[in-house]
Amino acid sequence: MNERVSPKRAAPVRARRQPAGEGARPPSGAESLLGTLVGAGVEVCFTNPGTSEMHFVTALDTVPEMRGVLTLFEGVASAAADGYGRMTGKPASTLLHLGPGLGNAIANFHNARKARTPIVNIVGEHATTHLAYDAPLTADIEAIARPVSRWVRTSQSSATVAHDAAEAVAAASSLSGGTATLIVPADISWDPSTGPVAPIAPVPPRPVGEAVVEGVARALKGARKAAILGRGPALHGAGLEALGRIAAKTGAALFGDTFAPRMARGAGRPVVRRMPYFAEDAAAALADFDVLVLVGTTAPVSFFAYPNKPSFLAAPGCAIHTLASPDEDVVAALTDLADALGAPRKAGKAERYALDVPGRPSGPLDQQKVGAIVARLLPEGAIVSDECITSGAFTSEYGPSAAPHDILWISGGSIGIGLPLATGTAVACPDRKCVCLEGDGSGMYTLQALWTQARERLDVVTVIFANRSYKILHVELGRVGVTAAERSGRVLDMDDPVLDWVKMSEGMGVPARRVDTAEDFADVFAAALKARGPFLIEAVIP
Amino acid sequence: MNERVSPKRAAPVRARRQPAGEGARPPSGAESLLGTLVGAGVEVCFTNPGTSEMHFVTALDTVPEMRGVLTLFEGVASAAADGYGRMTGKPASTLLHLGPGLGNAIANFHNARKARTPIVNIVGEHATTHLAYDAPLTADIEAIARPVSRWVRTSQSSATVAHDAAEAVAAASSLSGGTATLIVPADISWDPSTGPVAPIAPVPPRPVGEAVVEGVARALKGARKAAILGRGPALHGAGLEALGRIAAKTGAALFGDTFAPRMARGAGRPVVRRMPYFAEDAAAALADFDVLVLVGTTAPVSFFAYPNKPSFLAAPGCAIHTLASPDEDVVAALTDLADALGAPRKAGKAERYALDVPGRPSGPLDQQKVGAIVARLLPEGAIVSDECITSGAFTSEYGPSAAPHDILWISGGSIGIGLPLATGTAVACPDRKCVCLEGDGSGMYTLQALWTQARERLDVVTVIFANRSYKILHVELGRVGVTAAERSGRVLDMDDPVLDWVKMSEGMGVPARRVDTAEDFADVFAAALKARGPFLIEAVIP
Repeated sequence: MNERVSPKRAAPVRARRQPAGEGARPPSGAESLLGTLVGAGVEVCFTNPGTSEMHFVTALDTVPEMRGVLTLFEGVASAAADGYGRMTGKPASTLLHLGPGLGNAIANFHNARKARTPIVNIVGEHATTHLAYDAPLTADIEAIARPVSRWVRTSQSSATVAHDAAEAVAAASSLSGGTATLIVPADISWDPSTGPVAPIAPVPPRPVGEAVVEGVARALKGARKAAILGRGPALHGAGLEALGRIAAKTGAALFGDTFAPRMARGAGRPVVRRMPYFAEDAAAALADFDVLVLVGTTAPVSFFAYPNKPSFLAAPGCAIHTLASPDEDVVAALTDLADALGAPRKAGKAERYALDVPGRPSGPLDQQKVGAIVARLLPEGAIVSDECITSGAFTSEYGPSAAPHDILWISGGSIGIGLPLATGTAVACPDRKCVCLEGDGSGMYTLQALWTQARERLDVVTVIFANRSYKILHVELGRVGVTAAERSGRVLDMDDPVLDWVKMSEGMGVPARRVDTAEDFADVFAAALKARGPFLIEAVIP
Repeated sequence: MNERVSPKRAAPVRARRQPAGEGARPPSGAESLLGTLVGAGVEVCFTNPGTSEMHFVTALDTVPEMRGVLTLFEGVASAAADGYGRMTGKPASTLLHLGPGLGNAIANFHNARKARTPIVNIVGEHATTHLAYDAPLTADIEAIARPVSRWVRTSQSSATVAHDAAEAVAAASSLSGGTATLIVPADISWDPSTGPVAPIAPVPPRPVGEAVVEGVARALKGARKAAILGRGPALHGAGLEALGRIAAKTGAALFGDTFAPRMARGAGRPVVRRMPYFAEDAAAALADFDVLVLVGTTAPVSFFAYPNKPSFLAAPGCAIHTLASPDEDVVAALTDLADALGAPRKAGKAERYALDVPGRPSGPLDQQKVGAIVARLLPEGAIVSDECITSGAFTSEYGPSAAPHDILWISGGSIGIGLPLATGTAVACPDRKCVCLEGDGSGMYTLQALWTQARERLDVVTVIFANRSYKILHVELGRVGVTAAERSGRVLDMDDPVLDWVKMSEGMGVPARRVDTAEDFADVFAAALKARGPFLIEAVIP
């Protein structure tokens, strides 16, 4: 999110093509809305529309600068917009059908909310004249939108809908970013309007005061052992480079949030350790530090609570300093801090990962071998959508010293994001290879993403870790102090029947292969990376 | 929903099995909750659990009267609970994981809300001590639940969670029924409690006064031409029989809501016409009546608004009388009205459908031929989950005079209900054949239901109408006065790539066949009806 939409980057686009044979007519509300979005730099719309959105849909014909991408389930649309926003730093739009369509997108809007991804969420509504009748699809759309939106508005008139759209884009891109939900009644889409309006400048992230930067610099200098925990713009691009400079000067250990929206890592990138998932591991990782600096994030807490275990993870007595909260200018604050410390202009080799890939494994496949092979073969510049949960050998062990890549996590902890997140990154970055590491349980929530990958010929290689179980829940069972017997075990396992990911993938138009040896996985993965277009590998593991 | 849970039908069930080796210990909050549900007649739990629900899950081992049914997506759980409740008149429970898990279930809870189906919706929450830390999965669960719930509560203590559960069951079953959402923090599940509590009596539907019944009787007698429009308990069982008596006495035309939750029809059942979907057809159907009586429903309105068309569908000048609102006692009101009119004790043959199935079609398949064959072969007592949208030949034309069956519709208009609704009806009625008529677009929202059908060996035959398009949207485009060109058409069609339903179905463990001739469809459908267990037929149609 460090590349922001310039408020003046594009002149407003007029709805310039008239439907054949109709002659001159004023643009519809939908055309004015769409033209405003395009003028503000919103160029992609992930959609699953219905009748109330038909005027928006046909406006795609008169506003060709907007690319419509069809999804067959709304949770795919929200996660794809999230992936797009994380990689470009600017909003895509979604177009959803009334309250229930928005409902289907809520779980991944939750993830986007925690990722602070800019998204312009357009939701159709019944015509204003129709609402009083409480037709079957009538629902309180604003109420459904609010828990996941930073900004919510229902358009009141076709004369103002373009202005609403400009405000929505600004709201989505303001501060650290978020979802702006604009609800558009059908008659406001179809009524005549006055055309697109110019973009509105977003509110930039708040500046961090000099005193704060100096205070943190003093704390770092005075620390026995300091750590810096980052999220958001601290973990890629200029923010990450500044972090590396600070580490080079102070020796501070660098950490990233467990479920950071995006982290740049791999050979040549500053060494930033991912905070471990389990509370006791995270607490152990933090135990030795007497100073913890937060950048774009909050103090680390456990993902879940467990009986008789603390939620708060920093060591007792550790001094916690906030350099920049998420809505503050993380990149400027880090750069200022590095300068205030007199850090070198670039971190040296010692503070960066060296390329160090594991040997080529052989024999029966397991998650460790898959991780090693992914690390060996991952091409430079790849984008990894990681939702493989318990199969984290690449995530935690081998990935940091693989070729440089971006890795995207389940920012809000709601599983069912991996496949559509990869879909969105591939739309955002068509020249980079996208790799999705996906659990078989997690993948089932939004498997419809595969169809959109096939339709749009997106360059995504998906690896399904097929352990035929909600394995994390078996682990968590023991951790919360209970044991599963037969009946409870039955609601945690997916081995009856076994899911056939090759058939499901081929059924949605994505070619696929099942492998169960390291040799086969390496061959098939290498071939999939070499080819272009979507491919799925079902990696059968214990 | 006319069979209600008797408040005293079962004594509270104690959590009586102790986990091996632990000796005597007080029941956990989760065990007290589960025991209370079972004691109140809630015997099935459609679930997709997470870490915060692990104590509820393991309580399944100590409270074996509760059947846990795993779904791989929460929208399957909410629709399955809806199907179960529509057929049994009593609530199933759901068990969902925090705000995002609930979010995934919202669209089908919307349908259940409009169907007024009793459902006890249990949603896990972070431990009370953990909420302050705003961990990734933290969300405003109450806010997400409210738009689709009749009753929402967050449990405050393990000492009172059993009482909360008893109140939730009562709330779900009160008046016309609805979703009661009980949010249970993890520590309230795991802390010791004092065991299950006795059921609480639900509030019965409100009685309809004698004066209202007499007023409607007078209106029917004085009408030039009268119609009665029903929904809910008016369309099956004793309510439907009373409707038939009234028609026999008065000659009133009987209608059911377009998207009634459940309608009993077929040979021997009183003739009730389904209100047409499109506004102009519905208005035409109602044009001749000077009196319209509403029973368990509201005055008919169009599903969507269209430019320059009215939403309200009854004829101008038609007198509208409400015999019973949805929260009133529909069955008693209809019986009283029949008695007040001096109607015969049973409607005669003239007021009932006669068995009249179409001839056996041949040649290339189309939706008309599929409908004819379904009507020919449908076994007596079948339950039809109907979400085939534009492929409605069975729905509207052939079904009424087929063998007697129940048909269930998309009560809230939110597509993506058909497959899981059928799943729930099959759990509710294991001795009846379930047939799901499903559009290929609609089916994609919740295709994960097929896996649960395979896992639970449910007796469901699914027919996918594969026209490779959101065909209804092409129809609606013209109706809202716009035309699709290439770019807009591309977000309405699903022909690139073509979905292979046979592979997707087999991938989830449900055997399947693709057919494109009437002869093959008839053979495969007949064989699937004869066998037991789930089967899917992809019927390729233009």
